[in-house]
Amino acid sequence: MPPSTPSEGRTILKLNQRTHALVEPILKASEDWNAEVTTTDSGTRLVDLGVNAGRGGLEAGRKLAEICLAGLGSVEFVPGEAPGTRTFVQVRTDHPALACIGSQYAGWQIKGENFFGMGSGPMRVKAGKEEVIQELKLTDDSPMAVGVLETSQMPDDAVCQKIASDCQVPPDQLCLLAARTASLAGHVQVVARSVETCLHKLHELHFDLAKIESGLGLAPLPPIASDDVVGIGRTNDAILYGASVTLWVRESTEKLREVAAKLPSNTSSMYGQPFEKILRDAKFDFYQIDPLLFSPAEVCLVSLEDGQSTMVGERNHEVLATSIGQG
Amino acid sequence: MPPSTPSEGRTILKLNQRTHALVEPILKASEDWNAEVTTTDSGTRLVDLGVNAGRGGLEAGRKLAEICLAGLGSVEFVPGEAPGTRTFVQVRTDHPALACIGSQYAGWQIKGENFFGMGSGPMRVKAGKEEVIQELKLTDDSPMAVGVLETSQMPDDAVCQKIASDCQVPPDQLCLLAARTASLAGHVQVVARSVETCLHKLHELHFDLAKIESGLGLAPLPPIASDDVVGIGRTNDAILYGASVTLWVRESTEKLREVAAKLPSNTSSMYGQPFEKILRDAKFDFYQIDPLLFSPAEVCLVSLEDGQSTMVGERNHEVLATSIGQG
Amino acid sequence: MPPSTPSEGRTILKLNQRTHALVEPILKASEDWNAEVTTTDSGTRLVDLGVNAGRGGLEAGRKLAEICLAGLGSVEFVPGEAPGTRTFVQVRTDHPALACIGSQYAGWQIKGENFFGMGSGPMRVKAGKEEVIQELKLTDDSPMAVGVLETSQMPDDAVCQKIASDCQVPPDQLCLLAARTASLAGHVQVVARSVETCLHKLHELHFDLAKIESGLGLAPLPPIASDDVVGIGRTNDAILYGASVTLWVRESTEKLREVAAKLPSNTSSMYGQPFEKILRDAKFDFYQIDPLLFSPAEVCLVSLEDGQSTMVGERNHEVLATSIGQG
Repeated sequence: MPPSTPSEGRTILKLNQRTHALVEPILKASEDWNAEVTTTDSGTRLVDLGVNAGRGGLEAGRKLAEICLAGLGSVEFVPGEAPGTRTFVQVRTDHPALACIGSQYAGWQIKGENFFGMGSGPMRVKAGKEEVIQELKLTDDSPMAVGVLETSQMPDDAVCQKIASDCQVPPDQLCLLAARTASLAGHVQVVARSVETCLHKLHELHFDLAKIESGLGLAPLPPIASDDVVGIGRTNDAILYGASVTLWVRESTEKLREVAAKLPSNTSSMYGQPFEKILRDAKFDFYQIDPLLFSPAEVCLVSLEDGQSTMVGERNHEVLATSIGQG
Repeated sequence: MPPSTPSEGRTILKLNQRTHALVEPILKASEDWNAEVTTTDSGTRLVDLGVNAGRGGLEAGRKLAEICLAGLGSVEFVPGEAPGTRTFVQVRTDHPALACIGSQYAGWQIKGENFFGMGSGPMRVKAGKEEVIQELKLTDDSPMAVGVLETSQMPDDAVCQKIASDCQVPPDQLCLLAARTASLAGHVQVVARSVETCLHKLHELHFDLAKIESGLGLAPLPPIASDDVVGIGRTNDAILYGASVTLWVRESTEKLREVAAKLPSNTSSMYGQPFEKILRDAKFDFYQIDPLLFSPAEVCLVSLEDGQSTMVGERNHEVLATSIGQG
Repeated sequence: MPPSTPSEGRTILKLNQRTHALVEPILKASEDWNAEVTTTDSGTRLVDLGVNAGRGGLEAGRKLAEICLAGLGSVEFVPGEAPGTRTFVQVRTDHPALACIGSQYAGWQIKGENFFGMGSGPMRVKAGKEEVIQELKLTDDSPMAVGVLETSQMPDDAVCQKIASDCQVPPDQLCLLAARTASLAGHVQVVARSVETCLHKLHELHFDLAKIESGLGLAPLPPIASDDVVGIGRTNDAILYGASVTLWVRESTEKLREVAAKLPSNTSSMYGQPFEKILRDAKFDFYQIDPLLFSPAEVCLVSLEDGQSTMVGERNHEVLATSIGQG
């Protein structure tokens, strides 16, 4: 056993490089993932997992979600019972702030001529455009960038060039994976955001995310919508009305109870309606929606300071049934 | 990132070659799987996972099931509650027709002097003996063949030579894995057939399997029978009365409801008796048994055309209890 | 396919060598596991997963548990419901006596100046100090040793030298992983001992462990205690009052029922109190505690001789709630 050198172990902060290693098996055996891999004129690799020719599937969605997490968490299918489904998505990470907020959070809206997509994945760190990336003081000197797009069309070369430029990498060092909301992989990767949603809500409540050591979340995989808006509704409902998240936190139970009182989705005034209805009532203007609505149905906070657990919120099968047209 | 070549990604159709990669770890570390590995005079590798000296076990059964699926699906143990068991087998694939019908289906009856076995695995594609293989237009130019045998004795060299010849490979390029029904690995690999059984029933109902994009199934692992006939009874009951299968299908809900009306096991006139009794009543003549009986207890069909889910059938703990002598 | 050589497959008995292969990824990418890796003056590698600087986490605990099992079993997080938790730990092995008793059992008390730790892992086989190692006739000629310490402080060089000497390896061929009870990884690795606890109880009842072919256990992960004694209480309660274990055994149901009558924890006169209270009532003298208390709440014994399953014991959510201060 040779002595360790100081650089050994320093693998996490190269978020894009480590994530690219997760993409390589898909590039090499795209058929296994029902992926359609193409290369733009400028050399950007595009992996369609549920937009046009890419059929994707459960495993494509699972892997896509792990890529969103920059490989710093795992995503699995587990049994469970909720209206219209027997399949749940379990996500787990021991680097919650970095994996979920630094990478998985779909915080980068990418617009181009005839293009719109929600960008997530570690490319967000290289782009550094969002306030939250700066707050978390994240940087990454990986020579490549990897991103995930929730979008109904594949980006063209111009959009890719723009993303590459924002990430400060040549276009041929950019790799983008995409699935529309209304696809199997698209639903899976959103439903895998239960822990992320909880962290984002805590961030909104000004809780210090660095105190959160680990997270594990479960949410039902609803029937896959064939329409993107319906899909946005159902996948959000899976979190808001179906998810159960546990966070292990280095904070006292007293302080955790304070934040817990505002944490689960049922503490929002907009709680109780399927998300599609909320979205339509708001005329698709997300700014009209209570930002505190976005949270898991049930949250368990385990204090690593004093060993107590606080469970708040409730799973709501009634709204989940309405959400999928079986209410 | 070098540009992809046209041949990149074309890995799926070499079903036997990709499956052989799954067998290699067992050949190299047979003790880990409690496998007894031998080589016949003609060079066929035999992997006993539950016939004679091979003890096998849960992991051997899990891996055997994944080999049956030609590596195009995953098999896992998950918690659950059913009479006499707390262990369920979950199977998942995004290539259901190819993995389950093209490979996993035990459609090749192999007979020799003093030998009988149900053959499954990708060798069936190379042999091309079954109508269903021709219907699915499957071929495989892998230089080797891999098969799985459900059998109470290991095949001798003559049987192996016959199989190799049918698969058009030299005997030393054939690898056969075997477990009797009445073994741990044997039970696991049968109980992992919940999605396959559902697809086979749909095929009987003339449904186009190519429309099925993904499948996920769950079935209880019954107490392992010590007798093969009892084992055939229990493992079939685990599917007929205990399994829950979800299929994601590119078809309208209207059409799916039509087929769903005939799909779950409770739509058969023979439903309600433990399978061992049905088999004995039929004097072990499978042709006397309603072919439409063979289906999971519960089926959830998710339409990828219109986003609705249709759930039919029922899990029946009463028959499962009778099946294991606890009714 | 080249013919197998006699040495092929003989991987299991090199318990320490095979386990070291599991540790290497942690040494190489310690940040991924939130591990603090250091090297003592004599060259022993120390992996802190929850003592001082090592934060550890769920994955660290999972991997630590698999290292305890010498890689001869798997540990996973699965959903479940018990007081204060939605997370269960599932352990599975097809080498139960070797993995659980030969390696995972924390049977080596390691004492030094200002040091105390419970030693587990395959180093116990090389040390050969315990009666049970001799009874199982275990030896290992691996050139290195790997051990796991449940301890509240990291061992110093002198302690490491003593352990290395006991294991008959140079200090620079020793690798020790450590987590205190009151840590996430520490709780996970103890709660992963459901099958081990069942085997140990069977050993106390003079049952021949070689007859046990496979084991699968489930136990709830309680809220992580911030105090080691509370942690010892809760993790033991997770087994005694929350665990469900299935063993597949080559023995008749008649004989299994005899041993089953004394097997689950509720057959002990001390059953019914949280373990922390039992420990405090015994003034921390383990010899005052009924050794037959240590057993899973629920046990399912599947006879591989006659195919029947025997289920005994009960899960007790009332005591589990009291155990975590929510009774």
